[in-house]
Amino acid sequence: MKNIHGGDIYQYNNILDFSANINPLGAPESVNRSIADAIGQIGHYPEMYSDSLRKAIGEKYHIDRSQIICGNGAADVIYRYVYAVRPKKILVTAPCFAEYEGAWQSLWASYDVPETAVYSLDHQDFCIKEDILTLIEREMPEVVFVCNPNNPTGVLIPVQILASIAECCKDNKIRLFLDECFMDFTGREEENSLAEKLKEYPNLMILKAFTKMYAMAGVRLGFGLTADTELIDRMYQAGPPWNVSVLASAAGKAALKEDDFVKETVQYIRKEKEYLYQALDTLRVQYWKSAANYILLKADRDLKERLIAAGILIRDCSNYRNLSEGYFRIAVKSHADNEKLIAALKVVLER
Amino acid sequence: MKNIHGGDIYQYNNILDFSANINPLGAPESVNRSIADAIGQIGHYPEMYSDSLRKAIGEKYHIDRSQIICGNGAADVIYRYVYAVRPKKILVTAPCFAEYEGAWQSLWASYDVPETAVYSLDHQDFCIKEDILTLIEREMPEVVFVCNPNNPTGVLIPVQILASIAECCKDNKIRLFLDECFMDFTGREEENSLAEKLKEYPNLMILKAFTKMYAMAGVRLGFGLTADTELIDRMYQAGPPWNVSVLASAAGKAALKEDDFVKETVQYIRKEKEYLYQALDTLRVQYWKSAANYILLKADRDLKERLIAAGILIRDCSNYRNLSEGYFRIAVKSHADNEKLIAALKVVLER
Repeated sequence: MKNIHGGDIYQYNNILDFSANINPLGAPESVNRSIADAIGQIGHYPEMYSDSLRKAIGEKYHIDRSQIICGNGAADVIYRYVYAVRPKKILVTAPCFAEYEGAWQSLWASYDVPETAVYSLDHQDFCIKEDILTLIEREMPEVVFVCNPNNPTGVLIPVQILASIAECCKDNKIRLFLDECFMDFTGREEENSLAEKLKEYPNLMILKAFTKMYAMAGVRLGFGLTADTELIDRMYQAGPPWNVSVLASAAGKAALKEDDFVKETVQYIRKEKEYLYQALDTLRVQYWKSAANYILLKADRDLKERLIAAGILIRDCSNYRNLSEGYFRIAVKSHADNEKLIAALKVVLER
Repeated sequence: MKNIHGGDIYQYNNILDFSANINPLGAPESVNRSIADAIGQIGHYPEMYSDSLRKAIGEKYHIDRSQIICGNGAADVIYRYVYAVRPKKILVTAPCFAEYEGAWQSLWASYDVPETAVYSLDHQDFCIKEDILTLIEREMPEVVFVCNPNNPTGVLIPVQILASIAECCKDNKIRLFLDECFMDFTGREEENSLAEKLKEYPNLMILKAFTKMYAMAGVRLGFGLTADTELIDRMYQAGPPWNVSVLASAAGKAALKEDDFVKETVQYIRKEKEYLYQALDTLRVQYWKSAANYILLKADRDLKERLIAAGILIRDCSNYRNLSEGYFRIAVKSHADNEKLIAALKVVLER
């Protein structure tokens, strides 16, 4: 079994990890404290369906908890969605996060199902354009998966295009799975998120994560939002009960109150991205401007190995569909860490 | 969505919970401490496939980690097993833990598959007898699920019968799923567990839990053991990666070192069971002797409601196959709590 994702720091000693996109400010103190406080509760089973956490999330998004599913990480929500919907045919953009297709392949492991329909993003700007609508209507998949901002590119879907995709899916009775796991890093949620439009699009499922913004990837906690409450029920049946631990539930409730922390993070990341863009310009490294907390680069194909030798781990993106050798993703980390990355890049690129 | 299990204390205020079977000694101090210590690591993704925890488990059971899968609770292992094996037809005993069939029903939700084959346990002693072999060979399921000691009865499968079942399954190329989640409470693991016979029975999967013995149900951690390493790989693909949090992984590694705690627990539970048996005899309540840390009772059908009014929650077992109204399960708790239960029983039964 191969690790196809970033964040696999366990095979290295003392490596500086730029491969996983975690908030460099670390977890809010309230999150750490809430976990420590919850240790006294581990003798009890968690709530079977995370009711109190779903209520707290519902208050933030002004929806009922019946429209929310919590997962053992966002990946749990993806798998439950795919296992509950059982789409024979799906459409993904490329490159995009691998677990949508991973879950779908796992579901149909030994069955004969149609090829995934793929919308290949133009490397010029990696931006979804109007022609995705033609592809959707021609391919007629059961589910369209899009990621906004996209991973690994950091590119946002233009607001008008996103609205057209949602309308097109609604008109054609196609489900839309919208991964917004990095949306809170953009600082432009009101404008770009569809979380306020669940009622308008009952075929829409939005995926959100606690793990990246609140630097709690190790705790595992994500959630999904949809007006389709019957689907929520089916997703809860499509996997084990008690899927969110008492520790993760406590951490999530604490994180939901950290509005100022989110604002601070957005400003910090924005500033550090500017620093990195300038440094990459100086180093003549090709990159794409990102709305999230990571940046896609193009460089020599052995850049990852050379940086590992310098004690830095970046994400090799050559295993993404529609990318090839020489594409890499770096996280936006603390200023001190970002300086280390740039210093190391300077050395390895000059060799 | 209804909670079909015990342990749902969240709808009550200040209730004494006899419905979930958790070690009354609470979590070992080392487990609590390991979670607190791991809070500093939550910013990192967990290992994708729990490699270091599987290594630690492997050292205990003298097997390679490739023969082990860790899950977000034992229920996660059950679902991954069923989703990876995809058995059209299964055989269960009745009564038994509901999640085997729950996972199977979830897998085949809208498909036309054969009825589950059911071996109904005789209420005299709830013991699996030789005639299960005839049923297995007549029904020829793809998987036989048995639970040893059984939940909710606490009854062990006689060693000879268990060996015959394993042989019968092997001869007929039937998979055997053996749930040993409560085996460590019996104090007779060497004699009763098949964990040392994985090589002999490559069609065997054994399920184990950390949650009950180490009183960490709220953390979620279980594991499966099998010589069929190809199945382990498929099970890891049959659900999301990173399924065990850094907190659960740390807790599990600490728990594995707590041999003395397990011995102490076994003695404590044995003594408390004797106390409860005698008290139940005095109260003329029918019960079945248990090898585990819970006891099945038969009493008036409204016993649960009457005990709730007295501040005590027990497990209504009427929703188990082959049980009916009037069957209840009580956990074996601390002596002080057990006394409270008996005192309450005395009052409500005399009414």
